[in-house]
Amino acid sequence: MNGALVFDAYGTLFDVHSVQQRCEEFWSGSGAKLSQLWRAKQLEYTWQRSLMGRYVPFAQVTREALAYACEALGLGLDERRSEALMNEYRNLALYPDVPASLARLRAAGRKLAILTNGSPDMIGPLVRNRGLQETFESVLSVDELGVYKPAPQAYQLAVDRLGVAAAGIGFVSSNCWDAIGAKCFGFAVYWINRGGAPVDRTGFLPDRVIGSLADIA
Amino acid sequence: MNGALVFDAYGTLFDVHSVQQRCEEFWSGSGAKLSQLWRAKQLEYTWQRSLMGRYVPFAQVTREALAYACEALGLGLDERRSEALMNEYRNLALYPDVPASLARLRAAGRKLAILTNGSPDMIGPLVRNRGLQETFESVLSVDELGVYKPAPQAYQLAVDRLGVAAAGIGFVSSNCWDAIGAKCFGFAVYWINRGGAPVDRTGFLPDRVIGSLADIA
Repeated sequence: MNGALVFDAYGTLFDVHSVQQRCEEFWSGSGAKLSQLWRAKQLEYTWQRSLMGRYVPFAQVTREALAYACEALGLGLDERRSEALMNEYRNLALYPDVPASLARLRAAGRKLAILTNGSPDMIGPLVRNRGLQETFESVLSVDELGVYKPAPQAYQLAVDRLGVAAAGIGFVSSNCWDAIGAKCFGFAVYWINRGGAPVDRTGFLPDRVIGSLADIA
Repeated sequence: MNGALVFDAYGTLFDVHSVQQRCEEFWSGSGAKLSQLWRAKQLEYTWQRSLMGRYVPFAQVTREALAYACEALGLGLDERRSEALMNEYRNLALYPDVPASLARLRAAGRKLAILTNGSPDMIGPLVRNRGLQETFESVLSVDELGVYKPAPQAYQLAVDRLGVAAAGIGFVSSNCWDAIGAKCFGFAVYWINRGGAPVDRTGFLPDRVIGSLADIA
């Protein structure tokens, strides 16, 4: 049992770059670039808005980041394409190592939860569309706090809602900055480094660096 | 006279990418890429550390971002090269439109100041090395606050120190996120968009978009 295991969603369980295919359909040859820039700006905007004290839900941040990215790359974006791409975010693919690993952890009796930046209108449909609604005891969104990770309040939400002390929470993220934020807060942290990225230099280190979710299960 | 004119430093007056030449000397063919990634990570780290409540001075953030960028690009970084590149940050070039424009504004009796993320050990030598120590009435650093832009406290520092109300302060930045943070706070904002970038979508717009500092002078 050992406390709870809390997962980041976007980039950790769900592959944000599975939007690339639809991007490519709309703008042939630009799918990969658009997907990368869209994601980069989405994250930047969460940090900047949190610092400015001007939170808006993740769906709006994501839509605004898409508009920026398309303009930067000279890609014409209309309402129809914007909606179609936002809809992709409710149908992101699971990473290949995720389904079997989650099933194994669940079978072992671990208490599993999601802690995400995603607003309920995004993360709820995504979890259902991927058939994970029975897997997680809780799907926690920073939306009720009005501030994004890596603010400590975001991680505190898991402590409060799961009723488990920080030291009893194992936190799993593929986003290094998120893993570091969680470590700074006091969780035991697994960083899934699927792509062999360098570790970020922001004062803390994940407890364990793993190549896939299977390494926990 | 009309109140004060407050300038961002890095990327606005001083060209952060003038480090590129020294990068290129050290790692031929990688100068531009390294300079871009170094800057991108430097900014990310300021936002992430501010949100985590784990401020360290800009000199440390800059050094840590350099270490990340070199590892990501597979470039061997030793202490000597790290120090040499950090020293470049105290000798950044002024953008071509800056010297004459500042001189004209100064001659017109405008109260000029700098408001920067840069820690005093970085911004002080840089201002002196570029011969600007007589140009600015104040060089204000967020270092005394322990939080980076675009947190509102950073902009409040200019109000407090210059003794001018927010509405009486004209703020000039080439960093769109900084221009937006300043506008959100209540300054009248000029965004110098030298490169024709899209405007960021984070809820506010600069009052004026200009191509060069000469457009204010």
